Amino acid sequence: MLRLQLSPCGFDTIPTVSIEFKIEARDGSARCGRLSTPHGEVETPVFMPVGTQASVKAVPQDILEELGVQILLGNTYHLYLRPGVQQVRRLGGLHGFMSWNGAILTDSGGFQVFSLNELRKVSEEGVTFRSHLDGSSHFFSPENATEAQIGLGADIIMAFDECTEYPAEPQRVRESMELTLRWAARSKKYFEEHKHAVPWGKVSSFQFLVSSAQNTGNRKPETGNYQALFGIVQGGTDPRLRRESAERTIEIGFSGYAIGGLSVGEPRSLTREIVESTIEHLPTDRPRYLMGVGTPEEIVEYANLGVDMMDCVLPTRAARHGLLFTSEGKISIKQARYADDAGPLDTNCACSVCSRYSRAYLRHLYAANEVLAQVLNTIHNLSFYLDTMRRVRHSIELGRKTRSLSEVWSLRER
Amino acid sequence: MLRLQLSPCGFDTIPTVSIEFKIEARDGSARCGRLSTPHGEVETPVFMPVGTQASVKAVPQDILEELGVQILLGNTYHLYLRPGVQQVRRLGGLHGFMSWNGAILTDSGGFQVFSLNELRKVSEEGVTFRSHLDGSSHFFSPENATEAQIGLGADIIMAFDECTEYPAEPQRVRESMELTLRWAARSKKYFEEHKHAVPWGKVSSFQFLVSSAQNTGNRKPETGNYQALFGIVQGGTDPRLRRESAERTIEIGFSGYAIGGLSVGEPRSLTREIVESTIEHLPTDRPRYLMGVGTPEEIVEYANLGVDMMDCVLPTRAARHGLLFTSEGKISIKQARYADDAGPLDTNCACSVCSRYSRAYLRHLYAANEVLAQVLNTIHNLSFYLDTMRRVRHSIELGRKTRSLSEVWSLRER
Repeated sequence: MLRLQLSPCGFDTIPTVSIEFKIEARDGSARCGRLSTPHGEVETPVFMPVGTQASVKAVPQDILEELGVQILLGNTYHLYLRPGVQQVRRLGGLHGFMSWNGAILTDSGGFQVFSLNELRKVSEEGVTFRSHLDGSSHFFSPENATEAQIGLGADIIMAFDECTEYPAEPQRVRESMELTLRWAARSKKYFEEHKHAVPWGKVSSFQFLVSSAQNTGNRKPETGNYQALFGIVQGGTDPRLRRESAERTIEIGFSGYAIGGLSVGEPRSLTREIVESTIEHLPTDRPRYLMGVGTPEEIVEYANLGVDMMDCVLPTRAARHGLLFTSEGKISIKQARYADDAGPLDTNCACSVCSRYSRAYLRHLYAANEVLAQVLNTIHNLSFYLDTMRRVRHSIELGRKTRSLSEVWSLRER
Repeated sequence: MLRLQLSPCGFDTIPTVSIEFKIEARDGSARCGRLSTPHGEVETPVFMPVGTQASVKAVPQDILEELGVQILLGNTYHLYLRPGVQQVRRLGGLHGFMSWNGAILTDSGGFQVFSLNELRKVSEEGVTFRSHLDGSSHFFSPENATEAQIGLGADIIMAFDECTEYPAEPQRVRESMELTLRWAARSKKYFEEHKHAVPWGKVSSFQFLVSSAQNTGNRKPETGNYQALFGIVQGGTDPRLRRESAERTIEIGFSGYAIGGLSVGEPRSLTREIVESTIEHLPTDRPRYLMGVGTPEEIVEYANLGVDMMDCVLPTRAARHGLLFTSEGKISIKQARYADDAGPLDTNCACSVCSRYSRAYLRHLYAANEVLAQVLNTIHNLSFYLDTMRRVRHSIELGRKTRSLSEVWSLRER
């Protein structure tokens, strides 16, 4: 077991372990691990549901717990704009604010500035952008994006990066990668100097009572625990630049390493190629996080390449459009063929939706524009993603080398 | 204990009890009762959440069970238009279709035709109206509205009536009341001749397995049990017409009696006056159902007048607009004053929302237009209504004569 990020700053004398990562099984490139965070353990490889605005859309937190969610993702960009970092901080950080006692990861806001702002202006200092809510002007730098993430208080936070667009000229990709490396160093410096400002422990007594009463098993962070900062590898679709970005990011030194700048329009075969070639250059003893992927097939594939953490809006967003993932393929529940179908969505799925409701009912809810359609569809899709990853972990433990979604779902239970 | 609606039709030789109603405590005009239906018992006075399109908007059925919902309401008008009666029937009736094993009541569609159709045409035979979905033309008569309700298979169904508008000329009110009486007799005749066609027992094996596994405590209806048909008293705001309507409806003979045609624009003092004077003329040993009310204050008041059943879209609809009912009054959660409020919505409420989330978080969810706002707000409002009625029942049992919402919420627990 590795102890990461041992107190380098001397703000106090208490041990300042932020996360621990222990690999428990290997199967080819794939590995099963256990990531210990200030808010509980996370079994890896893990799929992290996205809770953009401090809510995994349409799903109450107790249902996320029932689904076995151990870590979820919040978006700094959105939370910075609404309700604002200071307000979240005053209410105990994201954990207290949304009453979630499991682990949380926040992105740095870099990707949203890239994807939601066509009018952004990038300089050495940072990025000027306009709010998608009211058009107001804002500025993110490595320093204030890190400050925002310390205020939000997630267990794992990300260095501020520039997400390079696809396609891009080689010179542009290099310059962007170099900028991300300089920003990574600035993010780390700011983090080390300010990480003691994490809001844990400032949770109001109401929140604390609630947490204690309702979430037995989840622990309140021990004093002295800080957040963990991950670096992000960029470099577009050039394997040499990816290697260089990986090596120089590792030189700066982070608790974990993310692969960013993929799933931005490039063909999926190229995504896979870049993931595979980048992973070779990442330390085996640190968590590897592939940002913003993917379909159920892809998350199985990437886990097999040795990715430990993934996130994507696909299961939650698709659910709201009536697209449901099952062990036998994707279903568009709005189709008339399901109107009389008394069977469950997925006979192989044990989730609360498949155990109780018929396809006919789910089709009706969607057609009738009922809010419950969003709730139930999202619960099922998340359950399918989480169950898929559970099966991937099981397969790795057994050394079965299951390499595809259908193989994973044919795997016999223990 | 009364046994109502003993087999008058001779379709078979099995006893055909539909509902039983037993009064267990009295306190002035108020009474506590137990209504036994083919799908479980209902403690009265009861507030019935509205599940217009086979869904109590935004709330999964298992949460309704956790809230202690024993009976909910479906709207024949909406379900007839979408997904259609035959489809619901094929899927085991409303219980099978929506996977709800508690009791269900459907209205006759009369009120929706009245409230959603300005272009309706009423004749002796029935009402021609246009679908609010696609403008298509439809016709409801006492016979086919009853047929639809038998197909939907609720435990309690309603005679087809005309809801008289307010204000209306005396002559118009009398004619409308007379029409409702003729329709009541036709509804009953059709029901007695066709009640064996209820879809119970035709539930698909999947639905049956699901029901058995998930809803222990709820029972599958015994063979031979039929639905119960309730009559509706009309007569506008004239106490003499209300009395006549009550007496002549009782003459026709129903398992229970509803007071319809109120909450249609008249002042609330008049509503109360009419309810009070009408109740005098209803049999004490049958359930009394006041349709379409009310605020938390009103449901306490009406229960105290001796009303046994009520329904209203208010708690669910208000929730979706951020209006939340608490033991200390109504809250508009969108207000900026709640942005920093770390306390629970209602310190006296033990619901899953008040136990876990802060006002600040609920305010954020609403402001950020998150679907979870609708889910959590609805859960709280329903919990508040159900808890209010639980406290009213408790007060009646204790003979405390608590006559207002605030008194009910100050009542010490047993």
